Amino acid sequence: MANLLGLDIGGTNIRVGLVTDKGEMLDFYKTRTEAERGVEGVIDRIVDAINVLRSRNPNRQISGIGIGIAGILRPKEGIVCFSPNLPGWKDINLHKILRKRLEIPIWIENDANLIALGEAWLGAGKDIENFILLTLGTGVGGGIVYKGRLFTGETSGAEMGHLKIEPEGELCLCGRRGCLETYASAAWLIRRAEKRLDAGMPSILDRSGLDAKGMFLAARQGDILSEHLFRKAGWALGIAIANLLNILGFTTVIIGGGVSNAWDAFIGTLKYTLMSELLSVFYSEVRVLRSRLGDMAGIFGACYLAKQNLGI
Amino acid sequence: MANLLGLDIGGTNIRVGLVTDKGEMLDFYKTRTEAERGVEGVIDRIVDAINVLRSRNPNRQISGIGIGIAGILRPKEGIVCFSPNLPGWKDINLHKILRKRLEIPIWIENDANLIALGEAWLGAGKDIENFILLTLGTGVGGGIVYKGRLFTGETSGAEMGHLKIEPEGELCLCGRRGCLETYASAAWLIRRAEKRLDAGMPSILDRSGLDAKGMFLAARQGDILSEHLFRKAGWALGIAIANLLNILGFTTVIIGGGVSNAWDAFIGTLKYTLMSELLSVFYSEVRVLRSRLGDMAGIFGACYLAKQNLGI
Repeated sequence: MANLLGLDIGGTNIRVGLVTDKGEMLDFYKTRTEAERGVEGVIDRIVDAINVLRSRNPNRQISGIGIGIAGILRPKEGIVCFSPNLPGWKDINLHKILRKRLEIPIWIENDANLIALGEAWLGAGKDIENFILLTLGTGVGGGIVYKGRLFTGETSGAEMGHLKIEPEGELCLCGRRGCLETYASAAWLIRRAEKRLDAGMPSILDRSGLDAKGMFLAARQGDILSEHLFRKAGWALGIAIANLLNILGFTTVIIGGGVSNAWDAFIGTLKYTLMSELLSVFYSEVRVLRSRLGDMAGIFGACYLAKQNLGI
Repeated sequence: MANLLGLDIGGTNIRVGLVTDKGEMLDFYKTRTEAERGVEGVIDRIVDAINVLRSRNPNRQISGIGIGIAGILRPKEGIVCFSPNLPGWKDINLHKILRKRLEIPIWIENDANLIALGEAWLGAGKDIENFILLTLGTGVGGGIVYKGRLFTGETSGAEMGHLKIEPEGELCLCGRRGCLETYASAAWLIRRAEKRLDAGMPSILDRSGLDAKGMFLAARQGDILSEHLFRKAGWALGIAIANLLNILGFTTVIIGGGVSNAWDAFIGTLKYTLMSELLSVFYSEVRVLRSRLGDMAGIFGACYLAKQNLGI
């Protein structure tokens, strides 16, 4: 039995799991990223976190390490081109730096890509050869699994959140307009609600402490504003997913992330839009599934990346 | 030396090439498709065309056959789900039917996908691991080459022409709105020009016998209407290509088809749009190339599909 380490490097926390090659998590450790300490500081924190789990499990030889980081990466070279959560990280060859300090094979990927790979191994994508995954959280991310493995080009790609829905849509944080994220992320659902509340639109929502969950509960109670915004999200998701399936020729979509808990508020519009917008595949053959692994998906995916690359 | 047959089944003509595994075309034959004869009739024409080349080259053993057809296919099963150029073709298992009549291994793919594969073997995509290809003809098609092979999901996908640029754009022939094809295809460049000429917009274009070539020549002479429409095409192509590169993480795009001869009229706007819309890759790393193989690309691609699958 081989053992793997999977890491999820976020802007706030570093999370590490010790997982067997059968997908059983044996140990888990979480610590602060301390992103403000810059590249060297964060790398120290990563090595420390790995060593904590190693020293807690001295009898477990680690065969490989997978690491997920938000941002644009060059997975083949192990380079972090840019990470929105890690100030100062620009074209950092993390693989090279870590390999100098650790004698274990390491693979590095975009965090949302690894969520997709985790679902492929142990979640909603198990035994499904090809699928796309969307995570609807504060932002919108995703990944593509092709023939059971992660699809990745020269860079990690899969920037589903920045698929353009409307060229003249609202200005996204990325500096472009009309991105999927400006409709279907928690941050934008809240932002759009606030704007309309400020304009005096009628709603049962409470302007202070707005969150996606509150908006979902309000939508369920018949709040028109919340209902409208979730439908708009469903429409944008429908267009984005149709574009993806038309290009890739896939029939399976998995949706996860916090906003996906508002499933009933957007899935109707999503499916209706999908039905009219599909071209490469028949709607009747398309499956829209909910993710299963929750917030451990990325750690399992990181381990699976190592496992697949080790060929074990 | 192995020999391969590559077929391109169009609505008007069936074209067959006899090609060596080194990429040398030894013989070529073209005949009418006679699409109006329906499924059985066209299949007879396909078998006849194959046999013409076989009997003309009796000393050449054929190791494999690749076939390209416009439309939605299930390449793994060899099923033509639907072909816009072939009336009556709906869920036809072409592979199964042909294998009953021919003792040679056969692979079937979407025609534009095979153009991409042809460019990968012998054209602008040679030695490039990952790229997308767009063909700008009467319509807009395309293909994805990933790790040197054709990317294909449950269906042939790669419906680049129907990437949605504007949800509230013009009504495409596919029944959806704002597809790339409604901006960047020859048919739509002409349609848009005619509409504006009918509205009395000033132009040096001649309303009768309009074609994309004439529009390009007019644009070069300073015709504002033609210039405007090619720029609109470049803008839509820029958005579509940025979406594709952001999703796939690729850095190479190859553009072919008749409309690509108007390169100078759209490439400026295309590149300018691409520059603002890229996210997964740096603009400085992106290559936008012109295709090289012309109208034989699909036949070479069909042969390469057979060659790759035969492992020779």
